[in-house]
Amino acid sequence: MQTRIEVGILGATGMVGQHFIRFLQGHPWFELKWLGASDRSAGKKYRDAMTWHLGGDAPAGIADLLVEDSKPGNAPRLVFSAMDASVASEIEQAFAQAGHVVVSNSKNHRMEPDVPLLVPEINPGHLKLVPGQQRTRRWNGQIVTNPNCSTVVLTMGLAPLKQFQISKVIVTTLQAISGAGYPGVASMDIMGNVIPFIGGEEEKMQQETQKILGEFRGDHIEPLAAAVSAHCNRVPVIDGHTATVSVELAAKPSIVDLQQAFEAFRGVPQDRSLPSAPPRPVIYMEEGNRPQPRRDVERERGMAAFVGRLRACPVLDYKFVALGHNTIRGAAGAAVLNAELMHSEGMLD
Amino acid sequence: MQTRIEVGILGATGMVGQHFIRFLQGHPWFELKWLGASDRSAGKKYRDAMTWHLGGDAPAGIADLLVEDSKPGNAPRLVFSAMDASVASEIEQAFAQAGHVVVSNSKNHRMEPDVPLLVPEINPGHLKLVPGQQRTRRWNGQIVTNPNCSTVVLTMGLAPLKQFQISKVIVTTLQAISGAGYPGVASMDIMGNVIPFIGGEEEKMQQETQKILGEFRGDHIEPLAAAVSAHCNRVPVIDGHTATVSVELAAKPSIVDLQQAFEAFRGVPQDRSLPSAPPRPVIYMEEGNRPQPRRDVERERGMAAFVGRLRACPVLDYKFVALGHNTIRGAAGAAVLNAELMHSEGMLD
Amino acid sequence: MQTRIEVGILGATGMVGQHFIRFLQGHPWFELKWLGASDRSAGKKYRDAMTWHLGGDAPAGIADLLVEDSKPGNAPRLVFSAMDASVASEIEQAFAQAGHVVVSNSKNHRMEPDVPLLVPEINPGHLKLVPGQQRTRRWNGQIVTNPNCSTVVLTMGLAPLKQFQISKVIVTTLQAISGAGYPGVASMDIMGNVIPFIGGEEEKMQQETQKILGEFRGDHIEPLAAAVSAHCNRVPVIDGHTATVSVELAAKPSIVDLQQAFEAFRGVPQDRSLPSAPPRPVIYMEEGNRPQPRRDVERERGMAAFVGRLRACPVLDYKFVALGHNTIRGAAGAAVLNAELMHSEGMLD
Amino acid sequence: MQTRIEVGILGATGMVGQHFIRFLQGHPWFELKWLGASDRSAGKKYRDAMTWHLGGDAPAGIADLLVEDSKPGNAPRLVFSAMDASVASEIEQAFAQAGHVVVSNSKNHRMEPDVPLLVPEINPGHLKLVPGQQRTRRWNGQIVTNPNCSTVVLTMGLAPLKQFQISKVIVTTLQAISGAGYPGVASMDIMGNVIPFIGGEEEKMQQETQKILGEFRGDHIEPLAAAVSAHCNRVPVIDGHTATVSVELAAKPSIVDLQQAFEAFRGVPQDRSLPSAPPRPVIYMEEGNRPQPRRDVERERGMAAFVGRLRACPVLDYKFVALGHNTIRGAAGAAVLNAELMHSEGMLD
Repeated sequence: MQTRIEVGILGATGMVGQHFIRFLQGHPWFELKWLGASDRSAGKKYRDAMTWHLGGDAPAGIADLLVEDSKPGNAPRLVFSAMDASVASEIEQAFAQAGHVVVSNSKNHRMEPDVPLLVPEINPGHLKLVPGQQRTRRWNGQIVTNPNCSTVVLTMGLAPLKQFQISKVIVTTLQAISGAGYPGVASMDIMGNVIPFIGGEEEKMQQETQKILGEFRGDHIEPLAAAVSAHCNRVPVIDGHTATVSVELAAKPSIVDLQQAFEAFRGVPQDRSLPSAPPRPVIYMEEGNRPQPRRDVERERGMAAFVGRLRACPVLDYKFVALGHNTIRGAAGAAVLNAELMHSEGMLD
Repeated sequence: MQTRIEVGILGATGMVGQHFIRFLQGHPWFELKWLGASDRSAGKKYRDAMTWHLGGDAPAGIADLLVEDSKPGNAPRLVFSAMDASVASEIEQAFAQAGHVVVSNSKNHRMEPDVPLLVPEINPGHLKLVPGQQRTRRWNGQIVTNPNCSTVVLTMGLAPLKQFQISKVIVTTLQAISGAGYPGVASMDIMGNVIPFIGGEEEKMQQETQKILGEFRGDHIEPLAAAVSAHCNRVPVIDGHTATVSVELAAKPSIVDLQQAFEAFRGVPQDRSLPSAPPRPVIYMEEGNRPQPRRDVERERGMAAFVGRLRACPVLDYKFVALGHNTIRGAAGAAVLNAELMHSEGMLD
Repeated sequence: MQTRIEVGILGATGMVGQHFIRFLQGHPWFELKWLGASDRSAGKKYRDAMTWHLGGDAPAGIADLLVEDSKPGNAPRLVFSAMDASVASEIEQAFAQAGHVVVSNSKNHRMEPDVPLLVPEINPGHLKLVPGQQRTRRWNGQIVTNPNCSTVVLTMGLAPLKQFQISKVIVTTLQAISGAGYPGVASMDIMGNVIPFIGGEEEKMQQETQKILGEFRGDHIEPLAAAVSAHCNRVPVIDGHTATVSVELAAKPSIVDLQQAFEAFRGVPQDRSLPSAPPRPVIYMEEGNRPQPRRDVERERGMAAFVGRLRACPVLDYKFVALGHNTIRGAAGAAVLNAELMHSEGMLD
Repeated sequence: MQTRIEVGILGATGMVGQHFIRFLQGHPWFELKWLGASDRSAGKKYRDAMTWHLGGDAPAGIADLLVEDSKPGNAPRLVFSAMDASVASEIEQAFAQAGHVVVSNSKNHRMEPDVPLLVPEINPGHLKLVPGQQRTRRWNGQIVTNPNCSTVVLTMGLAPLKQFQISKVIVTTLQAISGAGYPGVASMDIMGNVIPFIGGEEEKMQQETQKILGEFRGDHIEPLAAAVSAHCNRVPVIDGHTATVSVELAAKPSIVDLQQAFEAFRGVPQDRSLPSAPPRPVIYMEEGNRPQPRRDVERERGMAAFVGRLRACPVLDYKFVALGHNTIRGAAGAAVLNAELMHSEGMLD
């Protein structure tokens, strides 16, 4: 193995931070060397600064690292941000200003006009926003973001259909509890229950989807001119967001066209065999009752989206079910794949 | 208490049959006197013919009744049918032919042109199909049906909006396991999972909704001329079907119009104070994260529908959440309310 | 209805406080007139001071009450305490000193030698501790407590066997999430999981059981001379603590003796028909796979304990399963029954 | 890789059969070449003969195998049996008679005096029963069994303590739904519930534990002279049986002795580095609230037992919590490890 690129994690003690740690274990390109967190944790060994919420234990090599303050100082150039939205804006900007490449899972900068909201299979060209971002903001560094966990599932399900001119989308999500972090959803609220509301989620899905599927136009992204309506629900599932999608396609393709589009869909990460890229980013399942979160979400290391039940919609044109792993493809894995794409573009050199 | 009308249950040993038994306990008009089931159970005491799946025990007075064969013979004139679809057609017809009033929860006759698919608050006038049904089929008796459990939730949420000319509906359901009966859904299939398919359910919701909201035209029901698209899912909830609904309304009412329509909605059962009628059939909840099945579904004895989160839909006109009790308002309670309406019309005299 | 006794609730905004409010609805002797909570809530209407976590809404009459500071001032003489252990000691003592009868669900005073730890069916005589408590502490008021929610289930299962000289008890609990209050257990911790530890619970069960089953000896309770060992677990159940119990009985009764003891068991609350007393405090279930929390715990208004599966134990003498409602019989209902017993003794006059 | 030993599976279409298939994927010694099932499935491709219930899909190479009749004919010499108890006796005996080595997970022959009930880390010497078995039954082949899934967890927790002379054991299990196969437990029975009974399970745990921890005495196993009492419960957990254990040890060791015994425990599979042997068969966890099924059961490929919360028991001597993977260490993995031990003994040559 050649020398790996040193990376750090901002917000390393939280649940998303833990997912980054686990996902980066054994990564062929990136070597985790730095953990940043709040003042309260700084100076402690990682194992003493948090409670590990994922299966098993914190990886041995990481558990003994000292947690540092979330300041640019001696962090590696590439940092993944898993910070809470309440603090992410200021800290991420400070890192970008100090020359760091901030690959963020936080929502704060996603909708900024000069910040890429990246899904490498869908809109790798949005990275072209970066030079303008650096120029305008006078940053040596940069901020690149990945979408909200439910938006990833929807956009990966829609991306193969973009060629048919998406004009309307109605989506209902059935979202896993892990999407709310830890402690997140109280068991008294969700056991045997559905909560038909997730704060800010519907707006995020609607706006982010238009940006992700939009086109780079010199200094901004022209959003996809499609109406998107989201109904977001929390359900008693541990990992995996399911979405039921009805879609109108102006080009009026046949159902066979759609199925072929799902199956043929590949992107830059597949062409370049990026380490975290699944062989097929969208997997179409023929079975009549799939995909299902508990049965399918861990496949392909949690990096693929699963689509099934494609059929005609009596109101719009077609409807289908999509599923993706919210803490992997929808968070840590998404950001790592973003960084891999950036590395393959020479942006980390 | 004046003399009550004797009633029977066809399919009394199954789970829907048990719900009928529980719902009829202490009913002011109807007295349960006869239990019909398959050959296998006939001749046994009810307590020995089944395993009670609901909370507590089978009611003492009923547990000692002898189960009889599902033949017209000595059954009361009014029978509720909780029979499995595989046997309901023939038996229900035999009872109707023999002069019985069959108030059925089975799906078999729902879409027959001359059979009312009744929700008393919505379409009491559909009972006018009965004389034609009797004439054509040469029956002294009759068959009246109630909708599928998920259709009830949707149609009660839509009925107050019918005045605004419903033109398109997209609905996604999150359905409880009790809707599948017993043993129904295997725990290995549903625990911590979503199953994005329920056999035949989407078709039922689409067709039944149009019939229920349609108009009586002499000898048939003219279905509502609205496109309806359903996505049906099973979720790990015990009782209560939740539905997210997007709706297009040709009359383009304001959001205030809609909320007032939900709150003002009343029907014949309320006017006549039928025993099982909830004071308000549709309850609009102001809270931002309601209705929720575990918190709300038992209210109003399970006979109301709950609506919440009314807001604009970027694709159609409005969207909202609806909830109803699938085994009460969606099954046993629905049929009993149908019979109460029929009695108030003099149809049981 | 004659004039009811006015009562208050200390800690009214928390989850246990809400259970008190619900349980006191329509109580024939007690009328809820006063709600005390922390500074933060004082001065607000109850509806604005809390989020209601139980089914439905807060009762209308109560929701409009003004919450007051947790100070004796103008509270009724009888107050139920649902306060958190972190503040209960001082406040309960202040109320007792000021002449109030404090009927507490908090753990703070349970093991004080001069404070009754009361289960009315088991140890009504322990109320004789009160005069000494008042004398020593120079209180006009008094403090009476009910046990921890899991202890109630165990002691009600053991009480009928006390006549056979209990010498050893090993109990494993499977406890519901509602026992941890709100927000309580994170869904990420308990969904599809077992947590084999509940802080302080095993010690409480071991000590409280000995005190409850002990004898009043002039100025203290002589604890039952039985060794008690508890294993406490949290399981994904909403309401109802299940306990598996192995017991050694020095008198070596037959299994028939035990079953008859369970069935014959009655106490003072039954003799006096106290309003919240279940007709039979312990219900023995013959079915081979009962009691079960979801099926049985709501019966008898949640005030009975259910016992089943009595059989020989190859290590001790007998083993069985016990079940009780942790937030009713194990909390709010327990305290209200204590107050009813006290009223029937003339202690509230 | 040298030539692998060909193996078959009896009962390949059921859930345990599927676990065998998954566990044998990539096995360094054994190559799965033959699948046996009932007449109904024989002649079909495996993919068409069953519904795959585990995560993902059936392995590609296996899915295309033709299922054969459960007759000795052309099966490999080594067959794993995953057959239902209703048919296992006759078929397993037919295979043993025809010269096959039957390594069975079925309960049918476990308690036969001449059949090893094997846990390779605990009682490898019990394989010495085989020659007598062959002699008496005039078999060229043989039958070797592994314990019931809950017994494995208990015996692995007890085995390190055997040196301290186990005299009494009281165990309560909290068992996962996967232990009941498919469709197994109805979701209506177990969601949010505890079922305090599993047919035959307590007897199996009590008897099998004594045999497994017993000693080979020429032609039979002298069972451990310890009283064992089991309380078995089903809980809403997917994989992983938890057990709370109280134990009396005649040698009266210190708590430090016990902890060291858990940590030092190794067996023949570890000495010989058998492919499926975990490095440490029993893992003692220091954390105060572990082991937990959802967090720990997948570690060590599901082949270790986890022990925690060791503390004094006020009734017996010590108490602790044990956890193991019921479908891996308690079924498929157990049988495969048995076969590996047998191969290392030259019994498959």
